[in-house]
Amino acid sequence: MTALIIGMGNIGKKLVELGNFENVYVYDRVPKDIPGVIRLDEFQIPSNVDVIVECASPEAVKEYSLQILKSPVNYIVISTSAFADKVFRERFFNELKNSPARVFFPSGAIGGLDVLSSIKDFVENVHIETIKPPKSLGLDLKGKTVVFEGNVEEASRLFPRNINVASTIGLVVGFEKVKVTIMADPATNHNVHIVRISSTIGNYEFKIENIPSPENPKTSMLTVYSILRTLKNLESKIVFG
Amino acid sequence: MTALIIGMGNIGKKLVELGNFENVYVYDRVPKDIPGVIRLDEFQIPSNVDVIVECASPEAVKEYSLQILKSPVNYIVISTSAFADKVFRERFFNELKNSPARVFFPSGAIGGLDVLSSIKDFVENVHIETIKPPKSLGLDLKGKTVVFEGNVEEASRLFPRNINVASTIGLVVGFEKVKVTIMADPATNHNVHIVRISSTIGNYEFKIENIPSPENPKTSMLTVYSILRTLKNLESKIVFG
Repeated sequence: MTALIIGMGNIGKKLVELGNFENVYVYDRVPKDIPGVIRLDEFQIPSNVDVIVECASPEAVKEYSLQILKSPVNYIVISTSAFADKVFRERFFNELKNSPARVFFPSGAIGGLDVLSSIKDFVENVHIETIKPPKSLGLDLKGKTVVFEGNVEEASRLFPRNINVASTIGLVVGFEKVKVTIMADPATNHNVHIVRISSTIGNYEFKIENIPSPENPKTSMLTVYSILRTLKNLESKIVFG
Repeated sequence: MTALIIGMGNIGKKLVELGNFENVYVYDRVPKDIPGVIRLDEFQIPSNVDVIVECASPEAVKEYSLQILKSPVNYIVISTSAFADKVFRERFFNELKNSPARVFFPSGAIGGLDVLSSIKDFVENVHIETIKPPKSLGLDLKGKTVVFEGNVEEASRLFPRNINVASTIGLVVGFEKVKVTIMADPATNHNVHIVRISSTIGNYEFKIENIPSPENPKTSMLTVYSILRTLKNLESKIVFG
Protein backbone atom coordinates (compact mmCIF):
# COMPACT_ATOMS: atom_id res chain seq x y z
CA MET A 1 0.00 0.00 0.00
CA THR A 2 1.34 3.44 -0.92
CA ALA A 3 0.24 6.27 1.34
CA LEU A 4 0.27 10.03 1.34
CA ILE A 5 0.19 11.41 4.87
CA ILE A 6 -0.78 15.04 5.33
CA GLY A 7 0.62 16.47 8.56
CA MET A 8 3.79 15.38 10.31
CA GLY A 9 2.79 16.04 13.91
CA ASN A 10 2.77 13.33 16.55
CA ILE A 11 0.11 11.24 14.76
CA GLY A 12 1.74 11.47 11.33
CA LYS A 13 5.15 10.46 12.68
CA LYS A 14 3.65 7.48 14.50
CA LEU A 15 1.88 6.37 11.30
CA VAL A 16 5.16 6.47 9.37
CA GLU A 17 6.78 4.42 12.15
CA LEU A 18 4.02 1.83 12.68
CA GLY A 19 2.21 1.64 9.33
CA ASN A 20 3.03 -1.21 7.00
CA PHE A 21 3.48 0.84 3.82
CA GLU A 22 5.41 0.08 0.64
CA ASN A 23 5.97 3.79 0.06
CA VAL A 24 5.06 6.85 2.08
CA TYR A 25 4.79 10.36 0.74
CA VAL A 26 4.43 13.08 3.33
CA TYR A 27 3.29 16.64 3.06
CA ASP A 28 3.54 19.22 5.82
CA ARG A 29 3.34 22.98 5.44
CA VAL A 30 6.42 23.19 7.63
CA PRO A 31 8.93 20.86 5.90
CA LYS A 32 10.34 18.28 8.33
CA ASP A 33 13.04 15.72 7.83
CA ILE A 34 11.56 12.30 8.50
CA PRO A 35 13.67 9.26 7.58
CA GLY A 36 12.29 6.71 5.10
CA VAL A 37 9.67 8.90 3.47
CA ILE A 38 9.34 10.88 0.25
CA ARG A 39 8.74 14.51 1.15
CA LEU A 40 6.52 16.61 -1.10
CA ASP A 41 7.39 20.29 -1.19
CA GLU A 42 4.01 21.25 -2.61
CA PHE A 43 0.70 19.54 -2.07
CA GLN A 44 -0.01 17.06 -4.87
CA ILE A 45 -1.34 13.52 -5.18
CA PRO A 46 1.20 11.14 -6.80
CA SER A 47 -0.61 8.77 -9.16
CA ASN A 48 0.51 5.61 -7.33
CA VAL A 49 -1.08 6.63 -4.01
CA ASP A 50 -3.71 4.15 -2.71
CA VAL A 51 -4.60 5.95 0.48
CA ILE A 52 -4.38 9.49 1.81
CA VAL A 53 -4.38 10.11 5.55
CA GLU A 54 -5.13 13.60 6.81
CA CYS A 55 -3.78 14.12 10.33
CA ALA A 56 -2.88 17.81 10.07
CA SER A 57 -5.62 20.27 11.01
CA PRO A 58 -9.19 21.30 10.16
CA GLU A 59 -7.67 23.97 7.88
CA ALA A 60 -5.85 21.26 5.90
CA VAL A 61 -9.11 19.31 5.52
CA LYS A 62 -10.77 22.40 4.09
CA GLU A 63 -7.84 23.25 1.85
CA TYR A 64 -7.10 19.86 0.23
CA SER A 65 -10.28 17.74 0.44
CA LEU A 66 -11.93 18.92 -2.77
CA GLN A 67 -8.77 18.17 -4.74
CA ILE A 68 -8.47 14.76 -3.05
CA LEU A 69 -12.08 13.89 -3.93
CA LYS A 70 -11.16 14.12 -7.63
CA SER A 71 -8.81 11.11 -7.24
CA PRO A 72 -9.65 7.38 -7.00
CA VAL A 73 -8.16 6.99 -3.51
CA ASN A 74 -9.14 5.93 -0.02
CA TYR A 75 -9.24 9.13 2.02
CA ILE A 76 -8.94 8.88 5.82
CA VAL A 77 -9.90 12.06 7.67
CA ILE A 78 -8.97 12.82 11.29
CA SER A 79 -9.50 16.57 11.77
CA THR A 80 -13.26 16.24 11.45
CA SER A 81 -13.95 19.51 13.25
CA ALA A 82 -13.62 21.01 9.76
CA PHE A 83 -17.12 19.60 9.17
CA ALA A 84 -18.65 21.65 11.99
CA ASP A 85 -18.60 24.38 9.32
CA LYS A 86 -21.90 23.78 7.54
CA VAL A 87 -20.88 25.48 4.29
CA PHE A 88 -17.79 23.30 3.94
CA ARG A 89 -19.70 20.19 5.02
CA GLU A 90 -22.34 20.58 2.34
CA ARG A 91 -19.74 21.28 -0.34
CA PHE A 92 -17.71 18.22 0.65
CA PHE A 93 -20.62 15.76 0.60
CA ASN A 94 -21.97 17.28 -2.59
CA GLU A 95 -18.57 16.77 -4.24
CA LEU A 96 -18.36 13.22 -2.86
CA LYS A 97 -21.49 12.19 -4.80
CA ASN A 98 -19.60 12.13 -8.12
CA SER A 99 -16.19 11.39 -6.65
CA PRO A 100 -14.16 8.24 -7.38
CA ALA A 101 -12.85 8.37 -3.78
CA ARG A 102 -14.01 6.53 -0.68
CA VAL A 103 -13.92 8.44 2.62
CA PHE A 104 -13.15 6.87 6.00
CA PHE A 105 -13.74 8.48 9.38
CA PRO A 106 -11.91 6.37 11.98
CA SER A 107 -13.25 6.27 15.54
CA GLY A 108 -10.21 8.31 16.57
CA ALA A 109 -9.97 9.08 20.28
CA ILE A 110 -13.28 7.39 21.12
CA GLY A 111 -15.16 4.14 20.54
CA GLY A 112 -18.67 2.96 19.90
CA LEU A 113 -18.93 4.39 16.38
CA ASP A 114 -19.82 0.83 15.37
CA VAL A 115 -23.06 1.06 17.38
CA LEU A 116 -23.67 4.68 16.46
CA SER A 117 -23.34 4.16 12.72
CA SER A 118 -25.43 0.96 12.86
CA ILE A 119 -28.42 2.66 14.48
CA LYS A 120 -27.92 6.21 13.18
CA ASP A 121 -31.46 6.48 11.78
CA PHE A 122 -32.95 5.73 15.22
CA VAL A 123 -30.84 8.05 17.38
CA GLU A 124 -32.75 10.65 19.41
CA ASN A 125 -29.74 12.40 20.88
CA VAL A 126 -26.07 11.98 21.75
CA HIS A 127 -24.35 13.71 24.63
CA ILE A 128 -20.59 13.82 24.67
CA GLU A 129 -18.91 14.91 27.87
CA THR A 130 -15.18 15.51 27.68
CA ILE A 131 -13.16 15.91 30.87
CA LYS A 132 -9.70 17.45 30.44
CA PRO A 133 -6.88 18.71 32.62
CA PRO A 134 -7.35 22.53 32.88
CA LYS A 135 -3.84 23.10 31.45
CA SER A 136 -4.70 21.44 28.13
CA LEU A 137 -7.48 24.04 27.75
CA GLY A 138 -5.13 26.88 28.69
CA LEU A 139 -6.82 27.31 32.08
CA ASP A 140 -5.68 27.41 35.68
CA LEU A 141 -8.49 26.18 37.95
CA LYS A 142 -8.80 24.81 41.48
CA GLY A 143 -11.98 22.73 41.15
CA LYS A 144 -13.92 20.73 38.54
CA THR A 145 -15.62 23.29 36.27
CA VAL A 146 -18.00 23.16 33.33
CA VAL A 147 -16.12 25.08 30.66
CA PHE A 148 -18.62 24.69 27.86
CA GLU A 149 -22.08 23.35 27.24
CA GLY A 150 -23.73 23.64 23.85
CA ASN A 151 -23.75 22.35 20.29
CA VAL A 152 -20.84 21.19 18.12
CA GLU A 153 -20.73 24.33 15.93
CA GLU A 154 -20.30 26.64 18.96
CA ALA A 155 -17.82 24.26 20.56
CA SER A 156 -15.73 24.17 17.39
CA ARG A 157 -15.49 27.96 17.30
CA LEU A 158 -14.31 28.14 20.93
CA PHE A 159 -12.18 24.97 21.03
CA PRO A 160 -11.22 24.24 17.42
CA ARG A 161 -8.48 21.77 18.41
CA ASN A 162 -10.65 19.82 20.85
CA ILE A 163 -13.78 18.97 18.98
CA ASN A 164 -12.94 16.24 16.44
CA VAL A 165 -14.71 13.57 18.47
CA ALA A 166 -17.97 15.54 18.68
CA SER A 167 -17.76 16.43 14.98
CA THR A 168 -17.36 12.80 13.93
CA ILE A 169 -20.46 11.94 15.97
CA GLY A 170 -22.25 14.88 14.33
CA LEU A 171 -21.34 13.53 10.89
CA VAL A 172 -22.89 10.17 11.78
CA VAL A 173 -26.19 11.24 13.35
CA GLY A 174 -26.58 14.88 12.32
CA PHE A 175 -25.03 17.82 14.13
CA GLU A 176 -28.38 19.02 15.53
CA LYS A 177 -28.66 15.88 17.68
CA VAL A 178 -25.32 16.27 19.45
CA LYS A 179 -24.83 18.09 22.76
CA VAL A 180 -21.30 18.81 23.98
CA THR A 181 -20.09 19.35 27.54
CA ILE A 182 -16.45 20.22 28.20
CA MET A 183 -15.28 19.96 31.81
CA ALA A 184 -11.93 21.02 33.23
CA ASP A 185 -10.82 18.88 36.15
CA PRO A 186 -7.50 19.54 37.95
CA ALA A 187 -7.77 16.02 39.43
CA THR A 188 -7.25 14.37 36.01
CA ASN A 189 -4.03 14.30 34.02
CA HIS A 190 -5.61 12.86 30.87
CA ASN A 191 -8.70 13.12 28.67
CA VAL A 192 -11.88 11.23 29.49
CA HIS A 193 -14.80 11.05 27.06
CA ILE A 194 -18.26 9.83 28.01
CA VAL A 195 -20.63 9.29 25.10
CA ARG A 196 -24.33 8.71 25.91
CA ILE A 197 -26.61 7.62 23.08
CA SER A 198 -30.42 7.54 23.36
CA SER A 199 -32.26 5.74 20.58
CA THR A 200 -35.37 3.70 19.90
CA ILE A 201 -33.12 0.62 19.47
CA GLY A 202 -31.41 0.96 22.84
CA ASN A 203 -29.43 3.19 25.17
CA TYR A 204 -25.65 3.12 25.16
CA GLU A 205 -22.94 4.65 27.32
CA PHE A 206 -19.26 4.55 26.35
CA LYS A 207 -16.61 5.73 28.79
CA ILE A 208 -13.20 6.23 27.20
CA GLU A 209 -10.20 6.94 29.40
CA ASN A 210 -7.07 7.22 27.28
CA ILE A 211 -3.67 7.07 28.91
CA PRO A 212 -1.65 10.03 27.56
CA SER A 213 1.09 9.24 25.08
CA PRO A 214 4.44 9.78 26.85
CA GLU A 215 5.87 11.64 23.84
CA ASN A 216 2.93 13.99 23.45
CA PRO A 217 0.32 14.04 26.23
CA LYS A 218 -2.17 15.84 23.97
CA THR A 219 -2.39 12.95 21.50
CA SER A 220 -3.99 9.67 22.49
CA MET A 221 -2.38 6.55 21.06
CA LEU A 222 -5.93 5.23 20.54
CA THR A 223 -6.26 7.73 17.68
CA VAL A 224 -3.07 6.39 16.07
CA TYR A 225 -4.16 2.74 16.42
CA SER A 226 -7.62 3.59 15.20
CA ILE A 227 -6.13 4.95 11.95
CA LEU A 228 -3.86 1.90 11.65
CA ARG A 229 -6.96 -0.32 12.03
CA THR A 230 -8.76 1.56 9.24
CA LEU A 231 -5.68 1.12 7.04
CA LYS A 232 -5.45 -2.62 7.81
CA ASN A 233 -9.17 -3.17 7.22
CA LEU A 234 -8.74 -1.92 3.64
CA GLU A 235 -7.04 -5.19 2.73
CA SER A 236 -7.37 -7.51 5.72
CA LYS A 237 -8.99 -10.93 5.39
CA ILE A 238 -10.58 -10.53 8.83
CA VAL A 239 -12.58 -7.43 9.76
CA PHE A 240 -14.08 -6.89 13.22
CA GLY A 241 -16.88 -4.44 14.05
CA MET B 1 -25.30 -7.07 -4.29
CA THR B 2 -26.41 -10.71 -4.34
CA ALA B 3 -26.58 -12.39 -0.95
CA LEU B 4 -26.94 -15.87 0.44
CA ILE B 5 -28.47 -15.82 3.92
CA ILE B 6 -28.07 -18.92 6.06
CA GLY B 7 -30.80 -19.15 8.68
CA MET B 8 -34.31 -17.77 8.41
CA GLY B 9 -34.95 -16.95 12.06
CA ASN B 10 -35.81 -13.46 13.23
CA ILE B 11 -32.48 -11.97 12.08
CA GLY B 12 -32.56 -13.61 8.64
CA LYS B 13 -36.11 -12.45 7.97
CA LYS B 14 -35.26 -8.88 8.99
CA LEU B 15 -32.23 -8.89 6.67
CA VAL B 16 -34.40 -9.99 3.74
CA GLU B 17 -36.86 -7.20 4.61
CA LEU B 18 -34.36 -4.39 5.23
CA GLY B 19 -31.30 -5.32 3.13
CA ASN B 20 -30.85 -3.58 -0.19
CA PHE B 21 -30.11 -6.73 -2.26
CA GLU B 22 -30.47 -7.36 -5.97
CA ASN B 23 -31.04 -11.06 -5.33
CA VAL B 24 -31.31 -13.06 -2.12
CA TYR B 25 -30.80 -16.78 -1.82
CA VAL B 26 -31.79 -18.29 1.50
CA TYR B 27 -30.96 -21.58 3.09
CA ASP B 28 -32.55 -22.96 6.24
CA ARG B 29 -32.51 -26.56 7.39
CA VAL B 30 -36.22 -26.20 8.00
CA PRO B 31 -37.58 -24.90 4.66
CA LYS B 32 -39.67 -21.73 5.13
CA ASP B 33 -41.68 -19.78 2.62
CA ILE B 34 -40.33 -16.24 2.52
CA PRO B 35 -41.60 -13.95 -0.24
CA GLY B 36 -39.11 -12.40 -2.67
CA VAL B 37 -36.23 -14.82 -2.12
CA ILE B 38 -34.77 -17.83 -3.92
CA ARG B 39 -34.92 -20.80 -1.56
CA LEU B 40 -32.14 -23.37 -1.73
CA ASP B 41 -33.22 -26.90 -0.79
CA GLU B 42 -29.65 -28.02 -0.21
CA PHE B 43 -26.72 -25.96 0.98
CA GLN B 44 -24.70 -24.65 -1.98
CA ILE B 45 -23.07 -21.39 -3.00
CA PRO B 46 -24.48 -20.01 -6.27
CA SER B 47 -21.67 -18.54 -8.37
CA ASN B 48 -23.19 -15.03 -8.49
CA VAL B 49 -23.20 -14.60 -4.71
CA ASP B 50 -21.15 -11.60 -3.45
CA VAL B 51 -21.83 -11.99 0.23
CA ILE B 52 -22.88 -14.79 2.57
CA VAL B 53 -24.50 -13.97 5.91
CA GLU B 54 -24.63 -16.67 8.56
CA CYS B 55 -27.35 -15.95 11.11
CA ALA B 56 -28.38 -19.52 11.88
CA SER B 57 -26.48 -21.23 14.74
CA PRO B 58 -22.99 -22.18 15.89
CA GLU B 59 -23.66 -25.62 14.36
CA ALA B 60 -24.25 -24.02 10.96
CA VAL B 61 -20.97 -22.07 11.26
CA LYS B 62 -19.14 -25.33 11.93
CA GLU B 63 -20.94 -27.19 9.15
CA TYR B 64 -20.65 -24.72 6.26
CA SER B 65 -17.67 -22.43 6.95
CA LEU B 66 -14.93 -24.57 5.42
CA GLN B 67 -16.93 -24.87 2.19
CA ILE B 68 -17.60 -21.13 2.20
CA LEU B 69 -13.90 -20.35 2.63
CA LYS B 70 -13.22 -22.01 -0.74
CA SER B 71 -15.24 -19.29 -2.51
CA PRO B 72 -14.26 -15.68 -3.34
CA VAL B 73 -17.01 -14.15 -1.20
CA ASN B 74 -17.49 -11.77 1.70
CA TYR B 75 -18.54 -13.97 4.62
CA ILE B 76 -20.37 -12.34 7.55
CA VAL B 77 -20.53 -14.52 10.67
CA ILE B 78 -22.95 -13.94 13.57
CA SER B 79 -22.98 -17.17 15.59
CA THR B 80 -19.43 -16.67 16.76
CA SER B 81 -19.82 -18.95 19.77
CA ALA B 82 -18.79 -21.69 17.29
CA PHE B 83 -15.26 -20.31 17.74
CA ALA B 84 -15.22 -21.00 21.47
CA ASP B 85 -14.39 -24.53 20.25
CA LYS B 86 -10.61 -24.36 19.92
CA VAL B 87 -10.31 -27.23 17.42
CA PHE B 88 -12.80 -25.61 15.04
CA ARG B 89 -11.26 -22.18 15.58
CA GLU B 90 -7.77 -23.31 14.60
CA ARG B 91 -9.09 -25.19 11.57
CA PHE B 92 -11.08 -22.15 10.40
CA PHE B 93 -8.21 -19.65 10.64
CA ASN B 94 -5.78 -22.12 9.12
CA GLU B 95 -8.13 -22.56 6.15
CA LEU B 96 -8.59 -18.79 5.88
CA LYS B 97 -4.87 -18.28 5.18
CA ASN B 98 -5.20 -19.63 1.64
CA SER B 99 -8.83 -18.70 1.15
CA PRO B 100 -10.09 -16.22 -1.46
CA ALA B 101 -12.79 -15.12 1.02
CA ARG B 102 -12.87 -12.16 3.40
CA VAL B 103 -14.49 -12.71 6.79
CA PHE B 104 -16.46 -10.06 8.70
CA PHE B 105 -17.47 -10.24 12.35
CA PRO B 106 -20.02 -7.47 12.96
CA SER B 107 -20.28 -5.94 16.43
CA GLY B 108 -23.64 -7.69 16.77
CA ALA B 109 -25.45 -7.05 20.05
CA ILE B 110 -22.67 -4.90 21.49
CA GLY B 111 -20.47 -1.95 20.57
CA GLY B 112 -16.94 -0.79 21.05
CA LEU B 113 -15.34 -3.41 18.79
CA ASP B 114 -13.80 -0.42 17.00
CA VAL B 115 -11.73 0.39 20.10
CA LEU B 116 -11.10 -3.24 20.95
CA SER B 117 -9.81 -4.19 17.51
CA SER B 118 -7.70 -1.01 17.29
CA ILE B 119 -5.81 -1.73 20.51
CA LYS B 120 -6.01 -5.53 20.55
CA ASP B 121 -2.25 -6.00 20.94
CA PHE B 122 -2.27 -3.90 24.14
CA VAL B 123 -5.26 -5.43 25.93
CA GLU B 124 -4.59 -6.91 29.36
CA ASN B 125 -8.06 -8.25 30.00
CA VAL B 126 -11.71 -7.83 29.05
CA HIS B 127 -14.61 -8.50 31.37
CA ILE B 128 -18.04 -8.90 29.87
CA GLU B 129 -20.97 -8.87 32.23
CA THR B 130 -24.33 -9.80 30.74
CA ILE B 131 -27.52 -9.16 32.71
CA LYS B 132 -30.59 -11.03 31.49
CA PRO B 133 -34.16 -11.63 32.62
CA PRO B 134 -34.17 -15.03 34.45
CA LYS B 135 -36.80 -16.39 32.01
CA SER B 136 -34.50 -16.01 29.00
CA LEU B 137 -32.05 -18.33 30.80
CA GLY B 138 -34.82 -20.81 31.68
CA LEU B 139 -34.72 -19.79 35.35
CA ASP B 140 -37.25 -18.62 37.91
CA LEU B 141 -35.54 -16.40 40.49
CA LYS B 142 -36.61 -13.79 43.03
CA GLY B 143 -33.41 -11.72 43.29
CA LYS B 144 -30.42 -10.69 41.19
CA THR B 145 -28.15 -13.76 40.97
CA VAL B 146 -24.76 -14.53 39.47
CA VAL B 147 -25.52 -17.48 37.19
CA PHE B 148 -22.06 -17.94 35.76
CA GLU B 149 -18.55 -16.63 36.18
CA GLY B 150 -15.66 -18.02 34.16
CA ASN B 151 -14.09 -18.16 30.72
CA VAL B 152 -15.72 -18.15 27.28
CA GLU B 153 -15.18 -21.86 26.60
CA GLU B 154 -17.02 -22.90 29.78
CA ALA B 155 -19.72 -20.31 29.21
CA SER B 156 -20.30 -21.59 25.68
CA ARG B 157 -20.81 -25.15 26.91
CA LEU B 158 -23.39 -24.08 29.50
CA PHE B 159 -25.10 -21.28 27.52
CA PRO B 160 -24.40 -22.03 23.83
CA ARG B 161 -27.06 -19.59 22.59
CA ASN B 162 -25.97 -16.70 24.81
CA ILE B 163 -22.28 -16.36 24.24
CA ASN B 164 -21.78 -14.85 20.77
CA VAL B 165 -20.79 -11.47 22.20
CA ALA B 166 -18.09 -12.93 24.46
CA SER B 167 -16.82 -15.15 21.63
CA THR B 168 -16.45 -12.23 19.26
CA ILE B 169 -14.41 -10.41 21.90
CA GLY B 170 -12.35 -13.58 22.37
CA LEU B 171 -11.64 -13.69 18.63
CA VAL B 172 -10.32 -10.13 18.77
CA VAL B 173 -8.07 -10.25 21.85
CA GLY B 174 -7.59 -13.97 22.50
CA PHE B 175 -10.00 -16.15 24.45
CA GLU B 176 -7.64 -16.45 27.44
CA LYS B 177 -8.01 -12.72 28.17
CA VAL B 178 -11.81 -12.70 28.41
CA LYS B 179 -13.76 -13.20 31.63
CA VAL B 180 -17.53 -13.71 31.45
CA THR B 181 -20.15 -12.99 34.11
CA ILE B 182 -23.79 -13.86 33.46
CA MET B 183 -26.33 -12.38 35.89
CA ALA B 184 -30.04 -13.12 36.05
CA ASP B 185 -32.08 -10.15 37.22
CA PRO B 186 -35.88 -10.36 37.59
CA ALA B 187 -35.96 -6.54 37.62
CA THR B 188 -34.89 -6.34 33.95
CA ASN B 189 -36.95 -7.30 30.92
CA HIS B 190 -34.09 -7.01 28.45
CA ASN B 191 -30.41 -7.80 28.00
CA VAL B 192 -27.72 -5.47 29.29
CA HIS B 193 -24.04 -5.95 28.42
CA ILE B 194 -21.21 -4.17 30.22
CA VAL B 195 -17.80 -4.54 28.58
CA ARG B 196 -14.75 -3.41 30.57
CA ILE B 197 -11.40 -3.26 28.77
CA SER B 198 -8.06 -2.76 30.53
CA SER B 199 -5.11 -1.98 28.31
CA THR B 200 -1.83 -0.09 28.27
CA ILE B 201 -3.43 2.41 25.84
CA GLY B 202 -6.42 3.21 28.05
CA ASN B 203 -9.35 1.85 30.00
CA TYR B 204 -12.77 1.58 28.44
CA GLU B 205 -16.24 0.75 29.71
CA PHE B 206 -19.16 0.20 27.35
CA LYS B 207 -22.69 -0.23 28.65
CA ILE B 208 -25.13 -1.58 26.08
CA GLU B 209 -28.83 -1.67 26.90
CA ASN B 210 -30.82 -2.98 23.96
CA ILE B 211 -34.57 -2.52 23.84
CA PRO B 212 -36.08 -5.94 22.99
CA SER B 213 -37.48 -6.37 19.49
CA PRO B 214 -41.31 -6.49 19.80
CA GLU B 215 -41.51 -9.47 17.42
CA ASN B 216 -38.86 -11.54 19.16
CA PRO B 217 -37.67 -10.30 22.56
CA LYS B 218 -34.62 -12.61 22.39
CA THR B 219 -33.16 -10.81 19.35
CA SER B 220 -31.85 -7.28 19.61
CA MET B 221 -32.45 -5.07 16.61
CA LEU B 222 -28.91 -3.75 17.15
CA THR B 223 -27.63 -7.10 15.85
CA VAL B 224 -29.73 -6.72 12.69
CA TYR B 225 -28.60 -3.13 12.07
CA SER B 226 -25.02 -4.07 12.82
CA ILE B 227 -25.13 -6.66 10.00
CA LEU B 228 -26.80 -4.14 7.68
CA ARG B 229 -23.97 -1.70 8.45
CA THR B 230 -21.33 -4.31 7.58
CA LEU B 231 -23.17 -4.99 4.31
CA LYS B 232 -23.39 -1.27 3.47
CA ASN B 233 -19.73 -0.66 4.32
CA LEU B 234 -18.73 -3.20 1.63
CA GLU B 235 -19.63 -0.66 -1.04
CA SER B 236 -20.36 2.63 0.70
CA LYS B 237 -18.46 5.80 -0.17
CA ILE B 238 -18.49 6.86 3.49
CA VAL B 239 -17.34 4.52 6.25
CA PHE B 240 -17.45 5.44 9.95
CA GLY B 241 -15.50 3.73 12.72
